Formats: sequence, structure tokens, C-alpha cells
Amino acid sequence: MGTSTILPDVGTQIVIPVCAAIGILFSLIQWFLVAKIKLAPEKSSKHGFNESLIEEEEGFADHAVVRKCAEIQNAISEGATSFLFTEYQYVGVFMVSFAVLIFVFLGSVDGFSTSSKQCTYDSSNLCKPALATAIFSTISFLLGAITSVISGFLGMKIATYANVRTTLEARKGVGKAFIVAFRSGAVMGFLLAANGLLVLYITVNLFKIYYGDDWEGLFEAITGYGLGGSSMALFGRVGGGIYTKAADVGADLVGKVERNIPEDDPRNPAVIADNVGDNVGDIAGMGSDLFGSYAESSCAALVVASISSFGNNHDFTSMMYPLLVSSVGILVCLLTTLFATDFFEVKTVKDIEPALKNQLIVSTILMTIGVAVISWIALPSTFTIFNFGIQKEVKNWQLFLCVGVGLWAGLIIGFVTEYYTSNAYSPVQDVADSCRTGAATNVIFGLALGYKSCIVPIFAIAISIFVSFSFAAMYGIAVAALGMLSTIATGLAIDAYGPISDNAGGIAEMAGMSHRIRERTDALDAAGNTTAAIGKGFAIGSAALVSLALFGAFVSRAEITTVDVLTPKVFIGLIVGAMLPYWFSAMTMRSVGSAALKMVEEVRRQFNTIPGLMEGTAKPDYATCVKISTDASIKEMIPPGALVMLTPLIVGIFFGVETLSGVLAGSLISGVQIAISASNTGGAWDNAKKYIEAGGSEHARTLGPKGSDPHKAAVIGDTVGDPLKDTSGPSLNILIKLMAVESLVFASFFATHGGLLFKIF
Amino acid sequence: MGTSTILPDVGTQIVIPVCAAIGILFSLIQWFLVAKIKLAPEKSSKHGFNESLIEEEEGFADHAVVRKCAEIQNAISEGATSFLFTEYQYVGVFMVSFAVLIFVFLGSVDGFSTSSKQCTYDSSNLCKPALATAIFSTISFLLGAITSVISGFLGMKIATYANVRTTLEARKGVGKAFIVAFRSGAVMGFLLAANGLLVLYITVNLFKIYYGDDWEGLFEAITGYGLGGSSMALFGRVGGGIYTKAADVGADLVGKVERNIPEDDPRNPAVIADNVGDNVGDIAGMGSDLFGSYAESSCAALVVASISSFGNNHDFTSMMYPLLVSSVGILVCLLTTLFATDFFEVKTVKDIEPALKNQLIVSTILMTIGVAVISWIALPSTFTIFNFGIQKEVKNWQLFLCVGVGLWAGLIIGFVTEYYTSNAYSPVQDVADSCRTGAATNVIFGLALGYKSCIVPIFAIAISIFVSFSFAAMYGIAVAALGMLSTIATGLAIDAYGPISDNAGGIAEMAGMSHRIRERTDALDAAGNTTAAIGKGFAIGSAALVSLALFGAFVSRAEITTVDVLTPKVFIGLIVGAMLPYWFSAMTMRSVGSAALKMVEEVRRQFNTIPGLMEGTAKPDYATCVKISTDASIKEMIPPGALVMLTPLIVGIFFGVETLSGVLAGSLISGVQIAISASNTGGAWDNAKKYIEAGGSEHARTLGPKGSDPHKAAVIGDTVGDPLKDTSGPSLNILIKLMAVESLVFASFFATHGGLLFKIF
Repeated sequence: MGTSTILPDVGTQIVIPVCAAIGILFSLIQWFLVAKIKLAPEKSSKHGFNESLIEEEEGFADHAVVRKCAEIQNAISEGATSFLFTEYQYVGVFMVSFAVLIFVFLGSVDGFSTSSKQCTYDSSNLCKPALATAIFSTISFLLGAITSVISGFLGMKIATYANVRTTLEARKGVGKAFIVAFRSGAVMGFLLAANGLLVLYITVNLFKIYYGDDWEGLFEAITGYGLGGSSMALFGRVGGGIYTKAADVGADLVGKVERNIPEDDPRNPAVIADNVGDNVGDIAGMGSDLFGSYAESSCAALVVASISSFGNNHDFTSMMYPLLVSSVGILVCLLTTLFATDFFEVKTVKDIEPALKNQLIVSTILMTIGVAVISWIALPSTFTIFNFGIQKEVKNWQLFLCVGVGLWAGLIIGFVTEYYTSNAYSPVQDVADSCRTGAATNVIFGLALGYKSCIVPIFAIAISIFVSFSFAAMYGIAVAALGMLSTIATGLAIDAYGPISDNAGGIAEMAGMSHRIRERTDALDAAGNTTAAIGKGFAIGSAALVSLALFGAFVSRAEITTVDVLTPKVFIGLIVGAMLPYWFSAMTMRSVGSAALKMVEEVRRQFNTIPGLMEGTAKPDYATCVKISTDASIKEMIPPGALVMLTPLIVGIFFGVETLSGVLAGSLISGVQIAISASNTGGAWDNAKKYIEAGGSEHARTLGPKGSDPHKAAVIGDTVGDPLKDTSGPSLNILIKLMAVESLVFASFFATHGGLLFKIF
Repeated sequence: MGTSTILPDVGTQIVIPVCAAIGILFSLIQWFLVAKIKLAPEKSSKHGFNESLIEEEEGFADHAVVRKCAEIQNAISEGATSFLFTEYQYVGVFMVSFAVLIFVFLGSVDGFSTSSKQCTYDSSNLCKPALATAIFSTISFLLGAITSVISGFLGMKIATYANVRTTLEARKGVGKAFIVAFRSGAVMGFLLAANGLLVLYITVNLFKIYYGDDWEGLFEAITGYGLGGSSMALFGRVGGGIYTKAADVGADLVGKVERNIPEDDPRNPAVIADNVGDNVGDIAGMGSDLFGSYAESSCAALVVASISSFGNNHDFTSMMYPLLVSSVGILVCLLTTLFATDFFEVKTVKDIEPALKNQLIVSTILMTIGVAVISWIALPSTFTIFNFGIQKEVKNWQLFLCVGVGLWAGLIIGFVTEYYTSNAYSPVQDVADSCRTGAATNVIFGLALGYKSCIVPIFAIAISIFVSFSFAAMYGIAVAALGMLSTIATGLAIDAYGPISDNAGGIAEMAGMSHRIRERTDALDAAGNTTAAIGKGFAIGSAALVSLALFGAFVSRAEITTVDVLTPKVFIGLIVGAMLPYWFSAMTMRSVGSAALKMVEEVRRQFNTIPGLMEGTAKPDYATCVKISTDASIKEMIPPGALVMLTPLIVGIFFGVETLSGVLAGSLISGVQIAISASNTGGAWDNAKKYIEAGGSEHARTLGPKGSDPHKAAVIGDTVGDPLKDTSGPSLNILIKLMAVESLVFASFFATHGGLLFKIF
């Protein structure tokens, strides 16, 4: 059974918090750099002009524009804050009631007994009572939920803070604007990654005071952290997704289609709501989602490790291997960020996409080295991993390969996503070309593109699963997911960059800034569309691995040793599970549709009843539109939320753990396909439209200009794609992860009291 | 081990062929009745007018119209025949090469040895050599393929024969036209059901001469029949589906959208190709598909039964239970048909839908009684069924419940499909309403509708699976599928009725018949749209059960006892399998798209270069359009066909039977959802458009009339739906069934020589 680790336990106790602290510090530095751009037109700023008075600059003298920008930023920030606070009220009620549920269900496993019992897996040891697990699971659930809420909220605050600054910097040139947008993304990325790590680390150490040597119980209780994080992400993704797309679709349908005014025109009453949506959906929602994935994959790895040799031998450093990987990830991402902001400079529009793409490549290469080092110093050369009833021997280099395969699979998914959604390649150009014969062929080709884009990512995921599963069973899957998420700080930075640039463009348009500035923000945004799609690819790829790891942890905890497709209980679970993503998508898409219809009516009403609105002499009533989006998204997020939260409970209680296993596997393998195809289809339509609008090639010019029939067809595709890529698609990540982590938390309850229906008959 | 059966073996030997003969006879009578309508304007016909000179009649004196109809019918029939013959040439090459493959692969299992060996399941018996199985599997494969081809071809012939007669009868009134269309559907339904049963029955009896008491080998060889039927169906569905939708979409994009001429206008050069497509895709393709399901579920049931007590005890009557159920089905459907044609009369447009719906209800109720009787007389009161390594005891009433649950699940699926696709209910009306805000919301709502429409059918399928699986393992599933298909004659009749009415309308338009006649055929067609969707619902529901049964038979034959999701081999199979339907759909949708683009170019070219075409003074060149559709569909059906046919071979040979099990289960649970949602979305869009066009309610009139903006949006939805509902959706049935039956046929080969990759590493 190997030797002990090179890194001593005390080293681990130092490395993790230090890395987390470095991440937070780095995030603050980036914030500080962004904050240097002042919103108020200062006297002193005139002084600073001298050094940067290069040809590109323009619109500096216009203080009115700056003031207007500040005003708009204020409106967006207020709208976003008010939405999130409304959301949190509802979510708070949910959080408290679900916390009670966790306590009662888990407490009842052993009849609320307070006496210690023999451990399940390490029978020589004495474990804490189930009641303790109930209490600590509830606490970690609340901690996870609160961390997630804070992550999302801070992300939104940073984004709204950065949007306007990006706009202002765009006056100085595309390079400066890029740096601001990218730095702001980094603030969010690092804060979230470091924060998630730190809270988890502290929680483990605090819980250890009570649990002592009962690591089985300790890490079982820790899984609540993942559940908390993910359940907040559900509301963030679904609520935010409905909000943003209701506003976007509503604004476009009246503004672009009926009134023929440009996107983000300040005369459009839904324009503020649309911009608020980008911040609450694409930023806060995405932040919560990835935080959830991160928390869950760590928890899944920890819970499996706790019943393997790491846990049985109380080897703290090895036990903390998942957290050490994340710690190294923070350092690697820090270095990677410098490549974009300091080592190289974005000078022209052409440099933007390569700069972002290099981030992915550099972080992956550096991380591979980092993981190799950590695997060498933090793992014994040989150890055992719990594999559904038996202990499987694993070598440290095998575990390195597990993490590595996840990491590189993430890169492959990223590149494939880029290929299918960037208008530099033939797939999107073909879709654009099909607009020649109208919206119908555009939709047909777009759907086909999305379906096709599943092929390579699924193979990449399948290979990762096969390799990591073969080497280290479910622990391997969990660390493969962690590998994919280890560069989360960079991933989030380039992902958040997208909506920030998008909003910057919106603010430029609303503030009436010059065409040239708008062109610069558009160039930033086009690259952002692709990176957003890449981010979604990562999110879904990691979600697939994470939920499989959680599924494995659940199965281990529920003491099932086989999930046999050839039993009716499991098979009906599979087929019904595979249906759930469809049910869920139907709900979210309809929600966007009906909320958008309400928005359309309001926008039309304002155009018809407010005199001088079209002429720009009267101001529209932005607040009503914000309210419509807020109310609709809060109301509409409840049914899909209930579907996701209740399904594992109902299936577990009435049908038992076998059927629940089937449901989890079914929804995983079906949901991942819909999520990939939905988000790529939407991204492709969006960029096909941008391809026609930009007219960057001979071919593109034959389809344009704006307002031509092919362009109109492209706009229809873009609008259809909106709910697919920003609401239903990304929400599916949460569906598959959340059901799995919920099952894991309640595993012991279902194993004890579940399967009522089969017990009765 | 129970008593013997009430029905003696000799009775079985009489009942099955007699029922088949009755079916064929009934089919011929229906044909005779349809054929009484003469195409050539006869002298004597003037005489016959007296009795039917009721108010409704019109256009009788116009001999020119009748002549024109005959001409059009000729063109359609020629086009369809020429396409099918071209298709059969390619398919013939495939058939021969695949037959060789079957022979070589299966022969190699035992090294082409000619000596008998011990049986696998009944070790007391001596079985024929693997070489014999190879030879007889090849023969039954060819028989199945030929029967399928004949079924499809005859169906097409009947349909083209009936189309024009329906048009002519429409002059006499809607009731008369309905009877013709329905009788023609019945000709096809009964011919196909009886023919399939008869060929299978004869094959079993002939093979028995050689095999004697080796029923294991006998029924293993019989599975080739299912594979043959299904592989022809693949090309029929995919080739026909691409043909019909390329022509349809191409014709609509130029005719309806650009030139503003009505559907089926004779000036449109693609109009003949469009009508040909209905016959080769919706009729011949559907016929082959359902024949395939029927053949496969029978084979799956037989192969499981052969290794259960029926086979071990050589109890012929019980062994033939699946064929007896089908025999009773023919009688029940015969009686049911009389309800529509003789017992009740369709007088007005309102009577059409109830008449068709009653067919479903009546046949299900009668069949329940029929199954009860057959289960009572043809089964011992207790028997055992092979259940993955062990023999499970089953009672005859349990098997009755298995068949019954499948039968009633089919009815439920039918009704749900109707609810989601008929414009009498709110889902389609909501979709129509969303056209108010344009094509984008229409597409969003339509996609959401399709997703939502999966819920109830999946629960119905899941319950059937659970009940039949629990009672009688995989044999239960197979007979549940047979139950759903037992009323296939009626199902096909109401299903074929749809395209026949559709074509009748087309002919009326092309022949320049009066508006009133067109209205009558439109009413027939609207009901036909819904029944076509119901037919597709049945097809996919039964395909799900059938492929599960085949999967079970494969697993039994490959001697696997568990398919554990928690092994990497199986899990990667599951996730890749779930991706295959997406890959396949991407191929078929793109194929339709690109073939339609070619069609659009040709139609545009003709409109631009043929002077007097728009004015109706010059005739378009129909033949070129027919050729484009033919060439495109032949060329485009190869890649998706190869995907389906090669996947089981590649996976089986390189990854082995466990991974292949995963692939089959994954593609089944994922494909069934896409198939249901695609076909319902398409059906809903089609009927939403018809809802606006018909303007039958206050609400519908606010959206219309034809040519209004909402109507244009509805047309876009309809066009998007075309490939979904008629190409990619229905082809998925074949994907999931065919991969399963192919695996079953090659099971012994894979078990012996498969899994090379894992053997090497």
C-alpha cells in the first residue's frame, strides 16, 4: 500500500489557503485596475490625456456622453440588483424549507438517535450518529447556497461596474477596451474560484473538529455544500435565463422587426431590461452554475475518497488532493491571465480571438504540468479506491492521467464548440448561406448543425469517462471533472468577457456614441459570442462528468453494487430520466416565449401611447419593462425548479434507489446532448446573423446588407436561438447535476426508507 | 408446469393460414370496390348518374377533367415507380452484399463446421451446426427483405391508384371520397398484415423440415426475417423521406413563398415530384417501417420463447402465440373496418375525425377480447420464460396483461398525439397564436410543444415496459409490442388514408377542379394530418418496445446476464448511443435541406426561363424535378444508412457485446424522445397553418387570412416541420430497431469473435 506522500499534511494545510488567498488578492488587483477608469468626468483626467492622444481616440471632450453612460450604468445596476434581491427573497424561502427537509429526512434515517454507530465501510471504526450528519449536511447546504449567492451577486456587480468602463475605454481603442473587459472577467473568475475553494477548505477543517476520525460521516455531510451551490445555480440559471431572453426576444421582436430600429436603441423601452438580463443571466447565472460544478465535483471526489484508502488511513494530504488540484489551478490561471494582459498586447480587432483562444491553450498546457507535480507530491505511489463494493488498486500516475484526460477533453470541447459557432468556419457560413432561401431553411440547417456538433464532444466525454473510470472508478471520473474545471478562473474570465462586451456595446449605442466606437465594441462582442459558446461547452462537459461522479457517489452511498439495465426498475428509470430534459426544456422555452409576448405587448403599448418616443423626444418607461421581466422570471422559474428538485425525492421515496439510478443515468445521457446541441445551434444562429451584418467576405456581402431578405431570415434564426442557447440549454447542466447531488445527499434516507411503492405491492 | 393448451397444434396450423387468407381476401374485396370507379369517361356512366344525382354532385359532365386527372395520376405513378425501381437497384446491391456478410460472419462462429453440437440452453438436446444457422439466417434475411420491398411497392401502387379515384369521388360528396380513401388504406393495411404473417408462418414451417426438434437454431435463424424487413425499411424511410421533403420544401419555398401561387398549383414544376414523394415516403416508407416492426417483434418473441418452456417442451401452439395474436388481429381489424365503411356513414366533414378515431377505440376494445381468448386457449396455465440466465414462471393471464398493456398504451399514445397535433385543442391553437409575433415565436412554441408531447407517451411506454417486464421478462416486452401492433391493419388503413387524401387534393388542384371539391379534399386531408401523426406515434411507440425486446433477445443470445451501467464499457456505450440519433438526424435534415436547395434552384430556373409558365400557357418540365429528387435521395440515403448498419458491426467487433448493449440502450432511450418530439412538432406546425387558413373560429380569423403576416410565419413553421415529421423523426424508429435486430442476428458472432480492442489491450 505505497509509501506516504512527499507533501506533509502541514504543507497541505498551508498550500490550500495560501493559493486561495493569492487568488483573492489577484482578483482585487484586477478590480483596482479596472476601477482606475473614472466615470465622473474629472478635471485631472484632462492631464492624463497627453500620453494617450493617439489617432484612435475620440469623443473624449464630450462630458455629456460620459454622464449619460454613468446614468445608463446606474439604471442597469439598479435593475439587476433589484431583480437579484427579489429572486433571493424567493430563494431564501426555498433555502430555509429545504434545509428543514434535509434535517428531517437525514435525521430520520436512524430515528433521530444520538448514539454513535459502527461505520458502514470501515467496520473497525465508530462513526457519529446519523443525526450529526443531518445537522452538518444542513449547515454545509446553507454554506454552499450562501457562497453561490455571493458568487453570483458579486459577479453581477463586477460586470455592471465593468460594462460602462469598457465602453469608455473603447474610445481609446479596441486594445484598451479589451483589457478592461478581460480584467473584469478575471475579477469574477478568480474571486469565484478562490472563494469556493476557501469556504470548502474552512468547512472541512471546522467539521473535522467535531467528526475527528469519522471521515465517512464528515465527507458525507460535506456533500450538502455541493447541493447548496447547485440549487442556487438552478434558480440563477433558470430565473436569469428567462429574464434575459424574455427581455431580449421582446425587445428584438418589436424594435428590430416591427419598428426597424437598431439593437440597443435607447428608444426601445425594453432595452434596459435586456442589458440587465445579460448581467443576471449570463453572468450571475453562469457564475453560480460553474461554482456549483466546482463544488459538486470536489464533494463527489471527497466522498468517494473518504471510503477509499485515503479515508481509511486518514491520509489528509491525499484526501485533499481535489482541493490541491484546484489550488494549483488558481496559480496556473494567474500566470495565464498575464499572457493576455501583460505579456502580449491586443492591438487590432484581429488579435482578439487568438488572445482568448491562447488563454485556453496556455492554461491547459501549464495545468498539465501543475497536475503532474501535485499528483507526484500529494499522492502515495499506490493506493486503493472504493469501486462499488470492492477496493481497486490505483497508481499515482494513473490518477494524473484521469485529471489530465478531463483537462484536455475540455480543450477539445472548447475547440469543437468554436468550430461550430464561430463565423470563421464553414458550418456557420453554411447556415448563413441557407438564409438565401428564407428562415425555414435557416432553422433546418441550424438545428442540424446543433445535432451534428454533439458528435466530437460526446466522444471526448466518452473517452474521458472510459480512461478515468478504468483507472480509478468513480473517483477517477470526479477528478477528471475537476481537471476540466481546474482552469475555471480562466474559463470564467473569458466567458464573462462576452456579456461584458455585449453590454458595453449596448451602452455605447444608448449613450449615442459614435459609429466607430460601436464598431469596436461589436468586434469585442463577436469574439465574446464564441467564447460564451466555449464557456457553455465547458460547463456542459464538466456537468456531464460531475453528474456521473455524483451518480457514482450516490450509488456507493446507497450501497448498490450494480445498476442493471436489464431490470424493469432500472429501465423505466432510464427512459423516464431521458425524457426529463425534454420536459424541462419545454417548460423553460415556453416560459421565455410567454414572457416575451408580455414584453412585446408592453413595448408596443409604449410605442403607440407615448408621443414622441420614436422621434427620440420622449423617454420610454424602462422600469415597467424591467418589472415585467422580473415578475415573469420569478413566476416562471418555479415549475421547472420544482420538477428538478422534486423528481429525485419522489422517485427515491416511491420507487427506490434502483429506479432513481436509472433516472439519473437517463437524464445525464440525454440531457448532455440536448444541452450541447441547443447552445451550439443558438450560438451559430447568432454568429450567422453577425456574419451577414459584418459583410467581411465576398460571400457575406452577397447575403447582406442589414435589412435584406437573407438578413431578416437570419434574425429569425437568432431569435429562435436565444432561449435555446441562454435559457433551456445551459439550464440542463443544472438539471443533470442537481438531481444527482440531491440524490447523493439523500442517499442514506432513500436506502433506508425509499421504494415505498414496491414495498407495498 | 401447467397443463397443455386447449387449442391443439393442428388447430394452430389451420387458424394462422386461414386468418392470413381472410386478410388477403378482404384486402382484394376492398381493392375491387375501389377499382369500380372508372377513370376513363365511359358512355354507360351517364346511365349511372340518375341514382346519385344529388345536390352535392358537380363537375360530372366535364370529361376533360377526368382525362386530365388520369393523366396526372399516370405521371405520379410513373415517377413513383421509377424512383422505387432506382432505389431497389441500390438496395439490391446492398441486400446481396449484406446476405454474404451474414453468411460469412455467422458461418465463422464455429469455423464453418458441419457437425452438430450440444444446444446452448437445452443441454439435453443436439443442435444443428452454426453453418446451418448462417445459411438459414441468410435465407430468412432475404425473405424478409423481399417481403418488405413487396409491401412497400404494393402500398405505393394502391395509393397512386386510389388518389385519383378519391378526387373523382369527391365530386359526389365528402362521404363517398372518404370511403374510397379509407378503403384504399385498408387494402394496404390488410395486405401488409396478412402477407407478413403468412410469409413468416410458411418460413417457420419450411425451416422446421430441416431443423426438426432444434428450435433454438430454428428461431435464431428466423431473426434474419426481422433484419431483412427492417433494413429495407431503413432505405424506404430515409430515401423516401428525403425524396418527399426535398420536393415538398423546394416546391413550397418557390411556389408559396416567392411566387405566391397556391400549393399543388400545376404551374409549379416540382408539384409532380411533391406528389410522388407522398406516395414513396409516407406510404411505401411507412408500410416498410411497420412491416419491419411487426416482423421484428414476432422474431424477438419467438427467439425468447424458443429457449423458454415453450421451446424446450416443443409446444407448437404456445410457441406460435405471437402469430396467433396477429391472426386474431386481422379478424378484429376486419370487423373494425366495417364500422367505418358499412355500419356507419360519414355524411359531413364533421364526421370524418370521429369516424377515424372510433376505428382506434373499437379495434382496441375488440382486440382486448380477442387477446383474452387466445391467451386462454393457446397458452398453458403456467409456463416458464427465459430471463437472463434463469427460467421465470409465468401464468397465462399475466401474458394476457402484457399484450393488453401494450395494446392500450398504443391507444393512449394515439390520443395524446392527437391532442398535441390536432387543431381542435389548445396546444396547436397556442402555436398558431404565437404566429402573431412572427416566425421566431412560432418556432419556439412549436419546439416546446414537441418536447412537452413526450411526457405522457414516455410514461405510457414506461408503464408497459414495467408491467410486461415484471410479468414475463423480455418475452413480455415482445408481446406487448405485438399487442400494440396487433391492430396494425387498422392503424395502417387510417395512416395511409392521410397521404391519399393529401394527394387527392393535389390532383384536384392540378386538374383545375372547382374550389368546392378542393374544400372537400382539404377537409379529408386535415383529418389525415392528425391520423398520420397518430400513425407515427404508434410506429415510434411500438419501435421502442420492439427494440427493447430485440435488445433483450440479443442479450440472451450473447449470454450476458447483466448490463451494468456502473462499468465503463457499458456507460460509454450508453452516452455514445444516446448521441447517435442526433448524428443521424443531423444527416437526414441536412440532406433534405441541400436537396431542397437544388430543387429551389431548378424551380426558379424554370420560372425564369420558360416563357408563359406563370401565365399557365406553357407546361413546366416536371421530369427534371422528379429526377433531382430521385438522385438526391438515393445519394443522400447512403451516409445515414451506413451509420445505422455499420455501428453495431464496428462496436460489436471492436468493443464487444457489453459496449454494444450500452449503445443499443442509449440510442433507444434517446431516440424515442427525439422521434416523438420531432413528429409532433411537425404535425402541430402543419395544423397550426391549416388552422389559420381554414379560419374556423373567431380566434383563427383574427390570425388569417392566407397571406397575412401570422399566416406567413405559420408557413415557415410548417416548412421547418416537414423534414422533422417526415424524414428525421420517423427514420429514428428504424435506427433504434435496426441496430437492435442487427445485433441480435450477429449476437453469436460478436460473443465469439467480438471485442477485439479490449482483447488487444
